[in-house]
Amino acid sequence: MRVTCIAGGVGGARMALALQEALAPGELTVVGNVGDDTEHWGLQIAPDLDTVLYTLTGRIDPANGWGVAGDTRAVMDEITGLGEDDWFILGDRDLALHISRTRKLAAGEPLSAITADVAARWGCPSTLLPATDDRLRTWIATDDGELPFQEWLVRRRAADPVAGVRFEGVPGARPGPGVLEAIAEADRIVLAPSNPFVSLDPILAVDGVRDAVRVRRADVVAVAPVIGGRTVKGPLVGMLETLGHRPDAVGIAACLADLAAAYVVDPADAGLATDVEALGLRPLVVPALLKDATARAGVAQVVLA
Amino acid sequence: MRVTCIAGGVGGARMALALQEALAPGELTVVGNVGDDTEHWGLQIAPDLDTVLYTLTGRIDPANGWGVAGDTRAVMDEITGLGEDDWFILGDRDLALHISRTRKLAAGEPLSAITADVAARWGCPSTLLPATDDRLRTWIATDDGELPFQEWLVRRRAADPVAGVRFEGVPGARPGPGVLEAIAEADRIVLAPSNPFVSLDPILAVDGVRDAVRVRRADVVAVAPVIGGRTVKGPLVGMLETLGHRPDAVGIAACLADLAAAYVVDPADAGLATDVEALGLRPLVVPALLKDATARAGVAQVVLA
Repeated sequence: MRVTCIAGGVGGARMALALQEALAPGELTVVGNVGDDTEHWGLQIAPDLDTVLYTLTGRIDPANGWGVAGDTRAVMDEITGLGEDDWFILGDRDLALHISRTRKLAAGEPLSAITADVAARWGCPSTLLPATDDRLRTWIATDDGELPFQEWLVRRRAADPVAGVRFEGVPGARPGPGVLEAIAEADRIVLAPSNPFVSLDPILAVDGVRDAVRVRRADVVAVAPVIGGRTVKGPLVGMLETLGHRPDAVGIAACLADLAAAYVVDPADAGLATDVEALGLRPLVVPALLKDATARAGVAQVVLA
Repeated sequence: MRVTCIAGGVGGARMALALQEALAPGELTVVGNVGDDTEHWGLQIAPDLDTVLYTLTGRIDPANGWGVAGDTRAVMDEITGLGEDDWFILGDRDLALHISRTRKLAAGEPLSAITADVAARWGCPSTLLPATDDRLRTWIATDDGELPFQEWLVRRRAADPVAGVRFEGVPGARPGPGVLEAIAEADRIVLAPSNPFVSLDPILAVDGVRDAVRVRRADVVAVAPVIGGRTVKGPLVGMLETLGHRPDAVGIAACLADLAAAYVVDPADAGLATDVEALGLRPLVVPALLKDATARAGVAQVVLA
């Protein structure tokens, strides 16, 4: 069985892990978000791709959901004394990846090749594809002006209400090698429980990707990133409100109804099933909080059925 | 009293420390070598400048004579698993400096301003001036062809006999801000016990620097980097031989006779005093191994007298 998961953020990484655990090695392809990539201390950081890589290779810090378990901060302790910014935490082992990637990108290697090489070195059983090798950056419109995504999320702690989201580089960003094929040829496509505005949309905004998913709608299952009206992780519910959507799992479903035929909701939201059906989505009710292996297996089983 | 020390390598850093300890804060200016600067893992490394900085601010690893005392290697342990070179050791705290410098250089800041900023942040009592802000690189001619300096020294452990030394970028490399003034206006100029071919020469090769030292010859004291026919640190004696010089302190003196009026030799080399005098240099005999504070004070006293 070939499965393609469209995944951004921590929710995307956890969904990818759920699928990887349920599938045979090589069966899962993850298409990852690069819209929140950033430059920090002059290094090229790819937070979403790295969170997937770390999660699928058992390196992830389980407490944070990002970064490397047991990582140290010797470089960070020293570099902030040299006047460098201190608001974006980068552990030492995590930095090794950023330093190497920065060197390889400067040498002209595409992000997709670099990512595949790291995944192979770390024995990752799944394929991880950046949505695009071209520059694509997520900007957040706020009352204080438009902010780069990480400035809004990390530096300002997502405190500024979101008036809009813009993807620099689209149209024009070409799908990374294998992305359209992974969507066209998969037996099942999963839209991970990721923020649709800043995690899924920057993937879908790449030239041709949204249409490629839409034509596969019958085989697409989405998983709700909101349970009982609360975001599992991150600032999603506030964004639903300020962007004019219903602030619950139905609000998300409305955003994804043209792409997916089925929609996983938690039993806490079973009462929303009728509203989900009204959007043309078949509701699948299963405990949807991907908090441990049992929960991950349960969601994977429903999604892959 | 204003003193300017022309210094490369570990011997240069130790001489600078000897002078700093003997002088009041602000009295010492060190002109440092950039010929062995290199790019590693895509980062801009300045080994000689950093050895001086670390030595003059008490950060130096006393066992190696380079790097930061007590440094860790978390980044290095991880990055070599990503396929990056493992032959140049970079500790975590050391890397912080390289990352920050690389970012600032890419942003257009000159090396001299970056170096001054770091020295100020670390409370360095002395002034450290890169010989030039322009690109100057030392190449070593060997039977295997010409090698970048660090490849020859570190990767191949200085095992290839040296057939010649070339400085890429000269003529044309302009003296860094303050370099010519520091030489013209000093009460005393010290040529540190550094390898003349690969540590002093790349400083003196910068446009105008050799002439600026030469016209101050009467106030210039050199310190022998060879004691009893053995190099204190590094591959100097072998270079003296393959480059056609007498392989002892007199061979060094001959290289520096047009620049210095006096020459410090160790009591182990007191028997060479007549040969030194024959070159037109006044020999000054004092224990010259800069191994501890007492030895440093003794050499500094003689040099500054």
